Amino acid sequence: MSADPEDRVTAGVLIIGDEILSGRTQDTNLRDIARYLGVHGVDLAEARTVPDVLEEIVAALDALRSRYDYVITTGGIGPTHDDITADAVAAAFGVELEEHPEIIAMMEARWGDQLNAARRRMARVPVGGDLVKNPVQGPPGFTIGNVFVLAGVPSIMRGMLEDVGPRLRGGKVTISRTVRVEGSGEGQIAAPLEAVAKAHPELSLGSYPFFGPDGFGSNLVLRGREPEALAAAVDELLAALREAGVERMAEVAAA
Amino acid sequence: MSADPEDRVTAGVLIIGDEILSGRTQDTNLRDIARYLGVHGVDLAEARTVPDVLEEIVAALDALRSRYDYVITTGGIGPTHDDITADAVAAAFGVELEEHPEIIAMMEARWGDQLNAARRRMARVPVGGDLVKNPVQGPPGFTIGNVFVLAGVPSIMRGMLEDVGPRLRGGKVTISRTVRVEGSGEGQIAAPLEAVAKAHPELSLGSYPFFGPDGFGSNLVLRGREPEALAAAVDELLAALREAGVERMAEVAAA
Repeated sequence: MSADPEDRVTAGVLIIGDEILSGRTQDTNLRDIARYLGVHGVDLAEARTVPDVLEEIVAALDALRSRYDYVITTGGIGPTHDDITADAVAAAFGVELEEHPEIIAMMEARWGDQLNAARRRMARVPVGGDLVKNPVQGPPGFTIGNVFVLAGVPSIMRGMLEDVGPRLRGGKVTISRTVRVEGSGEGQIAAPLEAVAKAHPELSLGSYPFFGPDGFGSNLVLRGREPEALAAAVDELLAALREAGVERMAEVAAA
Repeated sequence: MSADPEDRVTAGVLIIGDEILSGRTQDTNLRDIARYLGVHGVDLAEARTVPDVLEEIVAALDALRSRYDYVITTGGIGPTHDDITADAVAAAFGVELEEHPEIIAMMEARWGDQLNAARRRMARVPVGGDLVKNPVQGPPGFTIGNVFVLAGVPSIMRGMLEDVGPRLRGGKVTISRTVRVEGSGEGQIAAPLEAVAKAHPELSLGSYPFFGPDGFGSNLVLRGREPEALAAAVDELLAALREAGVERMAEVAAA
């Protein structure tokens, strides 16, 4: 986490759907949103996954939107009865849902007289909300207050994100550098890493171990907002690791 | 969600780590835990992802453990300075950490005089806690109260889970059946699905759309605890879909 909270811009993510909590679907939206926010200088501070239950969605939404600068939700905006995200967002903001004329116009152009009640559900937007463009397929998402409501299907979610970035007040962008250690476990790495972390409280240093063909290794990730401080810390870390007997290490391009 | 809450056994998952919130690492543990719990008749009711910050971990842990029958945490139990899950669990339960003699004995056998301070960090268990076996590599996890503390590395996490299941008081196992519709979007599916959902309040019906080479399709998942009710609902759904003009559909093996 950043050590300069005063210019930190934060977001929470709310993933909505029984299919994630049942283990049926592997969520990938969290990672995509986290990376997208990072590029825009916004720190993802927390994520929650809740079922398709109105009170659960409202409670999580209220907790996140009161605490972070932005909230991004994914899922639950389709036409079926279990898609209740719009209802929950409206309830959280204490407003009604109304059919958005732009969405209805798009739908009429697309569906003609096949525009049934289920499809019209997807035109409902909380009063006071704005649309979030959907460049992929299907109706748009929407935004109200500090909340952005996106689709759950990953390709559509990513498309909608492109219309979210320009509306974010970005903080300074966090940059990262990664030192990859192979053949040495965290037990050998911990002391040098901690020494560098203590010398650089303005940076975030993490160790992300893996287990490969040569035994344990770890990616050591240094994050911060100042390239010079980061460069100095990387040099210090490489020297400290060598001194601790680590032999195989190299800086790698950030994932 | 189940409509028979009286025999429902619930769990919350707490994923701990800056690497997930930065988008650097794709979490897969949530899905594995969800499926594992499902097989043991425990419903995953909520998941949270928090950074490596003590107060954040404690707050999320307290929220989840007071609300659900079980909590499973992943991540933050390695030897480096950013691994503070044990500290947070001890703080949440208001107890001290102590070096567990069994873990120290394992470590001495493994490391001999290379058993340094960083590695000893991984032997710390909250007073009153029990060990969770690690059949893969490295030190065990632990459990205290209704909380199970597992590793973040997926292969190790899965291994540790095998020692969690036998300690869970399982509810009735939820079974699921899946009808896959191709070439018809949710707009066409929604009305028949909702009719069957209304006729079977004891079941959970969800629609999980995809976009494939033939346009939109959806997996319709029916979940419940009674095989007969589920079978009847599947038959009704297939009939209702046919009546709504859906042509390509088939029951498929659950994912």
